[in-house]
Amino acid sequence: KHIMPRGEMMRRGNVVLRAGHVIGTATVGLLAEVGAATVAVVERPTVAVLSTGNELVSAARVPTFGQIRNSNGPMLAAAVETLGYQLRMLSVAGDDRDVLAEHIATGLECDVLVLTGGVSAGELDLVPDVLASLGVECVFHKVAMKPGKPIWFGVKRDVAGVDCYVFGLPGNPVSSFVGFHLFVRRLLDQLAGRQVAKQPHTARLSQPIENRGDRELFHPVTLARSATGEFVATPTAWRGSADLRGIASAHALVRIRAGQIAWPAESLVPIVPICDVFRDC
Amino acid sequence: KHIMPRGEMMRRGNVVLRAGHVIGTATVGLLAEVGAATVAVVERPTVAVLSTGNELVSAARVPTFGQIRNSNGPMLAAAVETLGYQLRMLSVAGDDRDVLAEHIATGLECDVLVLTGGVSAGELDLVPDVLASLGVECVFHKVAMKPGKPIWFGVKRDVAGVDCYVFGLPGNPVSSFVGFHLFVRRLLDQLAGRQVAKQPHTARLSQPIENRGDRELFHPVTLARSATGEFVATPTAWRGSADLRGIASAHALVRIRAGQIAWPAESLVPIVPICDVFRDC
Repeated sequence: KHIMPRGEMMRRGNVVLRAGHVIGTATVGLLAEVGAATVAVVERPTVAVLSTGNELVSAARVPTFGQIRNSNGPMLAAAVETLGYQLRMLSVAGDDRDVLAEHIATGLECDVLVLTGGVSAGELDLVPDVLASLGVECVFHKVAMKPGKPIWFGVKRDVAGVDCYVFGLPGNPVSSFVGFHLFVRRLLDQLAGRQVAKQPHTARLSQPIENRGDRELFHPVTLARSATGEFVATPTAWRGSADLRGIASAHALVRIRAGQIAWPAESLVPIVPICDVFRDC
Repeated sequence: KHIMPRGEMMRRGNVVLRAGHVIGTATVGLLAEVGAATVAVVERPTVAVLSTGNELVSAARVPTFGQIRNSNGPMLAAAVETLGYQLRMLSVAGDDRDVLAEHIATGLECDVLVLTGGVSAGELDLVPDVLASLGVECVFHKVAMKPGKPIWFGVKRDVAGVDCYVFGLPGNPVSSFVGFHLFVRRLLDQLAGRQVAKQPHTARLSQPIENRGDRELFHPVTLARSATGEFVATPTAWRGSADLRGIASAHALVRIRAGQIAWPAESLVPIVPICDVFRDC
């Protein structure tokens, strides 16, 4: 009764894992069990993070007139490392064409370069120009979303294909955060060979929400669960693209289409996760 | 129109974060913004992992008669590190009382010690005895669950309270895996000051499942999502507590109560996550 015959679980020649499998905890055990002490994996993409702007000082400094602390740099660095990708943190670049070009050239050595600031329409928004001068082709600039409209995306190609993917995220911290989750994270997961969720997660609104604009709105929400296990989304108090506090307590962003102003409670809406829902809600 | 008045988002004296907040990506940005370059945090618990058993060889070795490769050690180490806790990996201890005592004493220096093997009723199951001799009090031994029944839990106290929490997980790899997710992970999250989910997540069974035993059954499942966002759980092909392959492809464990043999499709059952559902399903 208590003896297990040899070969009952697996036999020589059985396929244990297929290519594309994410190596989770149980997989590590399985690989050890079958003696696969060394396995070929997809290399984790390298990501350079570069904040730009004359107005930026580090978190430890007290800003003087016309200055703000650099929140995007540390935030995006944390995002990259939380997801398990390889970070290359570049020092802040002021709005000087030559310095910017030098920093960007360093960032282009990575698989992905994420810039913040300098992509809107201001006089000192030099980033698109400098990128073009370094051979980065613009794929798109501006998306009809709120926050995050001024997002810039381009590629640097070499003979083998795309050599570096480049994102210019807006300088407003929530815009930058939303751009990261909607675009950068998605690309990084694909480059790393992760299977990405096939359909968006959804939640029911616990209270009405409005979208008076002509862009898709991504509003921060906390999530709870109904008796049947559905997610229930409650908008956090949030004052727009400069208000990180309204994001810090959120579990997800709800995606509210334009073209209909009032979205009643109980509406089923797509959500974009910004936490590990199984641990945090 | 495009000028933001000073102090619109926050003002001096506002509370930005309360104690107990998990420092996620957006929080890093928020802390940087307000100049909180250094903050007090709960220390991440340290976890010692110790595999026991004369039969164990490392993953890189070819087992000879009566030997198996150590899959639990690497698997539990991966689990600890994936969750972000501090790992102290101990070398494998054979079933020798003195060697075991020495390794266990080292492990007791951590916040949590996780042993595998040696907790069942075999002649060489020395772990409970050795733990007792080192001053570890047994809190419980054996739980009416399947797999994972022989799980052992105890505490070593000092004057200030509990000095080390000790788990003895069964040697069968899936039992060990399930014990980790149900008990060890939960404790680690609490020690780290994480808020743990208040109610279990749930899913609908896509097909019937049976529990003929008198213990709660934790069966691996893959998760998909219905049109309304409910999780739908499909049992994986799984042959019991030695079959890691049936776990490696799973997203969660469904918890099936004893006392009712047949659970029809569409039953709403609690699930225990073993992945980051937002990224993986």
